[in-house]
Amino acid sequence: MAERSLLNQLTGALRCLPGVGPKSAQRIAFHLLERDREGGLRLAHVMADAMTRIGRCRRCRTLTEHEVCAICANAQRDASLLCVVEQPSQVVAIEQAADYRGLYFVLGGRLSPLDGIGPDELGLGQLEDRLEEGIGELILAVSPTVEGTVTGQFIADRALSHGVRVTRIAQGVPLGGELESVDGGTLALAFAGRRDF
Amino acid sequence: MAERSLLNQLTGALRCLPGVGPKSAQRIAFHLLERDREGGLRLAHVMADAMTRIGRCRRCRTLTEHEVCAICANAQRDASLLCVVEQPSQVVAIEQAADYRGLYFVLGGRLSPLDGIGPDELGLGQLEDRLEEGIGELILAVSPTVEGTVTGQFIADRALSHGVRVTRIAQGVPLGGELESVDGGTLALAFAGRRDF
Ligand SMILES: [Zn+2]
Ligand SMILES: [Zn+2]
Repeated sequence: MAERSLLNQLTGALRCLPGVGPKSAQRIAFHLLERDREGGLRLAHVMADAMTRIGRCRRCRTLTEHEVCAICANAQRDASLLCVVEQPSQVVAIEQAADYRGLYFVLGGRLSPLDGIGPDELGLGQLEDRLEEGIGELILAVSPTVEGTVTGQFIADRALSHGVRVTRIAQGVPLGGELESVDGGTLALAFAGRRDF
Repeated sequence: MAERSLLNQLTGALRCLPGVGPKSAQRIAFHLLERDREGGLRLAHVMADAMTRIGRCRRCRTLTEHEVCAICANAQRDASLLCVVEQPSQVVAIEQAADYRGLYFVLGGRLSPLDGIGPDELGLGQLEDRLEEGIGELILAVSPTVEGTVTGQFIADRALSHGVRVTRIAQGVPLGGELESVDGGTLALAFAGRRDF
């Protein structure tokens, strides 16, 4: 075969999916081609759309195809509560699990000077603006890892200097654990059991 | 959220992939959006292309974007050998594993009258044409299941009535096993050890 067949190209391109090796890429390709072309075509279109149109919310930095995400744009949410998380996936996890009606701020990582991740990379200037605007309570929902704790301490200091009450989710999140792998019930408990920093 | 977000649409569309539940759909979506947009975009384009342009080879019925697949169109292949398989994935498996230089014929299933799968559905009229054209050896590489064996017997009878030598791959294919889950070495052995039907 001189030219690379479209089937080969598809199998190769599927390898960008996490955890998909050569064998499962082939299995997925044949499944779509022989049993679900409609689903494959819909996925292709939504994926192209998502990869090109999804950016970051101007206000909270989570992933969205709009200037401002649906949560930030929702006037029904309690703007006096601001929950600080590391990743957009954690916003989704909290929305699905906890009965939280406030707003979010997404850092996009943890302070890690050795990796060149400082306050600028985490949008802490933007967070400072939110503190200036005035909020009632800042809820730290960073992962309880070493870097997460350092990051949380940094943010708590800034918030406290603005006279903002700082709490952190606590009960149930296992030590050294990643927030998104915690089950919904535990996460709901952690929210209910938050305490002053 | 009144309207469904693009992220939600992506997570939903990813569910068409075999073995992907809500949790892993979300994991895949965030992986692509945060770490590999380029790969995701390339996959989206190749997938759309594959779902719309890949059809069946006019000659052997395997999956291809061309009228006639690269194997059938390759004059270097030995046209006196015809290997009959059930699925296009088995063509790929044999090409990767065995040192086979002949041609293929893809049934697309096994005879199963109760499911409405008869000779027409398997393209046996087309296979008959190939037998008329004259071939030296027909190699049965159907899975050694009950229906596969019945299908093989039916095809062998037709081939023998045309005076065509019929063999079937044998050594190493486990009883009741599916051909595509056999490892390459076993498949190569099965080819080398084929015997007259
Ligand atoms: Zn937002
Ligand atoms: Zn062909």
